[in-house]
Amino acid sequence: MIPGYSIRRVEKQDYKGVCEALNALTTVGEVSKAQFDATVDHWNHSLVLPNLLQYHPYVILKDNQVAATGMLLIERKLIHGCGLVGHIEDIAVSPRHQGKQLGRALIDHLTSLGLAHCYKVILDCDESNVKFYEKCGYSKAGVEMQHR
Amino acid sequence: MIPGYSIRRVEKQDYKGVCEALNALTTVGEVSKAQFDATVDHWNHSLVLPNLLQYHPYVILKDNQVAATGMLLIERKLIHGCGLVGHIEDIAVSPRHQGKQLGRALIDHLTSLGLAHCYKVILDCDESNVKFYEKCGYSKAGVEMQHR
Ligand SMILES: CC(=O)N[C@@H]1[C@@H](O)[C@H](O)[C@@H](COP(=O)(O)O)O[C@@H]1O
Ligand SMILES: CC(=O)N[C@@H]1[C@@H](O)[C@H](O)[C@@H](COP(=O)(O)O)O[C@@H]1O
Repeated sequence: MIPGYSIRRVEKQDYKGVCEALNALTTVGEVSKAQFDATVDHWNHSLVLPNLLQYHPYVILKDNQVAATGMLLIERKLIHGCGLVGHIEDIAVSPRHQGKQLGRALIDHLTSLGLAHCYKVILDCDESNVKFYEKCGYSKAGVEMQHR
Repeated sequence: MIPGYSIRRVEKQDYKGVCEALNALTTVGEVSKAQFDATVDHWNHSLVLPNLLQYHPYVILKDNQVAATGMLLIERKLIHGCGLVGHIEDIAVSPRHQGKQLGRALIDHLTSLGLAHCYKVILDCDESNVKFYEKCGYSKAGVEMQHR
């Protein structure tokens, strides 16, 4: 980890910091402390295999404050011999901590966690972020389509 | 549904048919009956909310045989007011049943199931399938990146 920063799983005390960091990515909207706690409880209890959690939400901290956050979600499939796929989601670096390679550190951490269990790790991003993810070892695999 | 065809959740009796259909999409590899059953059990028990299943695996049947299969996976996030996102995965039509609009019927079914609960439904596909998904109401949202 980058000097002065540390990384660990999201905890309930990270409520404000995680919501603030996520605001740099997209609309967070109304998330009460009770809803945050219920979501963290779900993430902490949901299993993808008898001995493997499904959700791996992380924060990078500096001086006890959330500087960045990101998620690895593990999906259980039939293809590839009942293989697992890791999905990296909701990567956000708080504006005060941008330009410090925290995104890179977070992606490296979640990717190696994912590849320890999954046959591949995937994520969706803007065309403008492709170069960044290529530096992290990723390559283009397809097109993300959405329906709202 | 298309005349002569029906749609329902995957059951354990669909072992052979589902594996055969998935072979049209990618490598299935070694999946024993016991592994299939354990995966279906997991899909049938894993909850994303207290009253909502997380995995929605479906088959389209004709004369009791699997003609197509596909999955809707629901992810629990913090963004968008603790929103849910639907992921459509592993869409496969068995070679004997191609050209009968089963892909379209499956996507329509999984998409409306997803939009009943989620603020968006997303999927990743080859550039060559973009036109098909546009006909299903989808639009391009980003680039899929992978690490293996
Ligand atoms: C690698 C990464 O962080 N990708 C994120 C995705 O995880 C997030 O859920 C989405 C939110 O966009 P939305 O607010 O339009 O749903 O943006 C990006 O695609
Ligand atoms: C909409 C749809 O069905 N997309 C599928 C995806 O769900 C599947 O998991 C992947 C398998 O590819 P792989 O064998 O290279 O992992 O192919 C496609 O992207």
